Amino acid sequence: MYIVNISKGVLKMNSISITRAAELKPKPQDESNLGNGMYFTDHMFSMNYHSDKGWYDARIVPYGPISLDPASTCLHYGQLIFEGMKGYRANDGRTLLFRPHNNMQRLNASAARMCIPPVDVDFMVNAIAKLVDIEKEWIPRSEGTSLYIRPFIISTDCYIGVQPSESYLLNVILCPLGHYLAGGLKPVRIFVEDEYVRAVKGGVGYAKCAGNYAASLIAQVKAHKLGCAQVLWLDGVNHKYVDEVGHMNVFFVMDGKVVTPELTGAILPGITRDSVITMLKSWDIPVEERLIDIQEIADAAKSGKLEEIFGCGTAAVISPVGELIWGDVEIKAGDGKTGPISRRIYENLTGIQRGVLPDPFGWSFEVK
Amino acid sequence: MYIVNISKGVLKMNSISITRAAELKPKPQDESNLGNGMYFTDHMFSMNYHSDKGWYDARIVPYGPISLDPASTCLHYGQLIFEGMKGYRANDGRTLLFRPHNNMQRLNASAARMCIPPVDVDFMVNAIAKLVDIEKEWIPRSEGTSLYIRPFIISTDCYIGVQPSESYLLNVILCPLGHYLAGGLKPVRIFVEDEYVRAVKGGVGYAKCAGNYAASLIAQVKAHKLGCAQVLWLDGVNHKYVDEVGHMNVFFVMDGKVVTPELTGAILPGITRDSVITMLKSWDIPVEERLIDIQEIADAAKSGKLEEIFGCGTAAVISPVGELIWGDVEIKAGDGKTGPISRRIYENLTGIQRGVLPDPFGWSFEVK
Repeated sequence: MYIVNISKGVLKMNSISITRAAELKPKPQDESNLGNGMYFTDHMFSMNYHSDKGWYDARIVPYGPISLDPASTCLHYGQLIFEGMKGYRANDGRTLLFRPHNNMQRLNASAARMCIPPVDVDFMVNAIAKLVDIEKEWIPRSEGTSLYIRPFIISTDCYIGVQPSESYLLNVILCPLGHYLAGGLKPVRIFVEDEYVRAVKGGVGYAKCAGNYAASLIAQVKAHKLGCAQVLWLDGVNHKYVDEVGHMNVFFVMDGKVVTPELTGAILPGITRDSVITMLKSWDIPVEERLIDIQEIADAAKSGKLEEIFGCGTAAVISPVGELIWGDVEIKAGDGKTGPISRRIYENLTGIQRGVLPDPFGWSFEVK
Repeated sequence: MYIVNISKGVLKMNSISITRAAELKPKPQDESNLGNGMYFTDHMFSMNYHSDKGWYDARIVPYGPISLDPASTCLHYGQLIFEGMKGYRANDGRTLLFRPHNNMQRLNASAARMCIPPVDVDFMVNAIAKLVDIEKEWIPRSEGTSLYIRPFIISTDCYIGVQPSESYLLNVILCPLGHYLAGGLKPVRIFVEDEYVRAVKGGVGYAKCAGNYAASLIAQVKAHKLGCAQVLWLDGVNHKYVDEVGHMNVFFVMDGKVVTPELTGAILPGITRDSVITMLKSWDIPVEERLIDIQEIADAAKSGKLEEIFGCGTAAVISPVGELIWGDVEIKAGDGKTGPISRRIYENLTGIQRGVLPDPFGWSFEVK
């Protein structure tokens, strides 16, 4: 794989300048109604990149608009990547980030695919921790809530030619997020998409880049019209192997085993996905990462062997799926209720994330 | 196909407000050195959209920065489309746009795929004409130069959830562009990409959306490292059918016939492509739109029947290809010089565009 120019500057933690907001915004009072992530905190982290000097001018500043020349290449050619991660307030008062190093490593993997320069993982984790520490009063406390952390990089060169930008802006913004699933762990109905394609091997499916999300909207709208919560994506070559569900990785519990699509290059290497696999293995529950034909799932359902389906990702953590609509076929998982494995994973994972349960895997990073 | 909500407001030409720039920028003096499109004119056209009221506040204003909330969905989920078209100053003083209605129709086709509301084609063509008229002194006059016109739409809702935005900003910016091919019609060397994939049926290959361009950068960088000017994209399913060359449609002259990939949904329906096909047919030169196996091209070259290869698009108009590097195979077209059909198309097409030749197809739109 082509590796872009490595950061030339070496940023140190003590080089982050901090400008405090003159006035603080009121924090949302109703933690049960945080919407789709629409309240942003008082400050953000920013730094710039130029190929001549690497990343520079790391700063925490009041949350506010970005001024972009209309010719900025990000607005035309979409050289845009992001990450999504979460921070929690533990019952004992600690502020915890969940696997932040993995998110920054994945940011660099996305960056390599999109010809964007990499960041220093440790520097970024510490910069995010510093920002979260400043904003810790924004972290909601109710069960199922969290502080969503959104690092993103945009290209900022200004010209009409199509080429990798020489300059970039990285921002981190924070947003209190409610329980993703109103009503708790309630299984949803999913439409198996057979017309639109999310990604294909050799493309950008494994990168957390903007284009993947824009491309998915039309299928999401179609699914909603058909009374489904989201789509199940099939692979773009054979139109039969399961890729993802909505913007999440997907797992099936069949005949006592757990199976999930292997990382083909077309699907996102989810950090929640990795956590689920690690957790299942630690419980001696067999997990297979392999190609999964949608016909196999339909057959398992028919013979009563399809016990559970669930999606997993940073936003929802675990999202149980009750049934798949595949053309004329209705694929029902178990008895339509949240299955025991989905529930066990959800409770253990959120328990670790919130510092309620022990953290045997060393996933929590404490903000000090 | 899913059709998004139609514009509710009806904008009229006399509803465009005009705010003149207080000071005009110096125009680039050296028309032989306009770079990769980096000089922008004094004014731009803008209008906003909200699902409650359709497109509104159409305005011509001084060229200047766009202020975006860092949570604007365009920067994260890439709901971004654009067009590229050109304006020319004819020898007789007229200002001509080339097939602007077709560009606005394609903008709407891209919009439908990306869940962006459509524009009124006639309104937009007239708005662009008004902007170009104000900026007509910026149109360069030398052979091969033009005024590049870049309409683009960005989503402007601000939240973390992934969903089609309810609000958008449309801008049109202008930029004098030099001869795309320094040194004139000189055939280039192209790398046949067999690792990275540009698009696949069911994806967004036919839409002029930002994500397609970001995804292509890594292959472009690889091609440059291998001493090639660009890549030839193969289809994402079989990795053997020719899709596009760089960001252009591609044509082959073989055995007295002209062939070009059919519109599969994975390639851009180029307006220059359509112009080339129309022109060839008017000359009674047979043109076939069909699947083209790269092996067929290699075989034709081997047996001396591959006469010409050329790319076509708005920026370059016609870009002759001298050879394709396909793994160990070097596929040479003709004698390595610009072929007679490439040259004839280039001269006739640019002749019509510049108002030097008659316009039998009604492609020129005069700005009055």
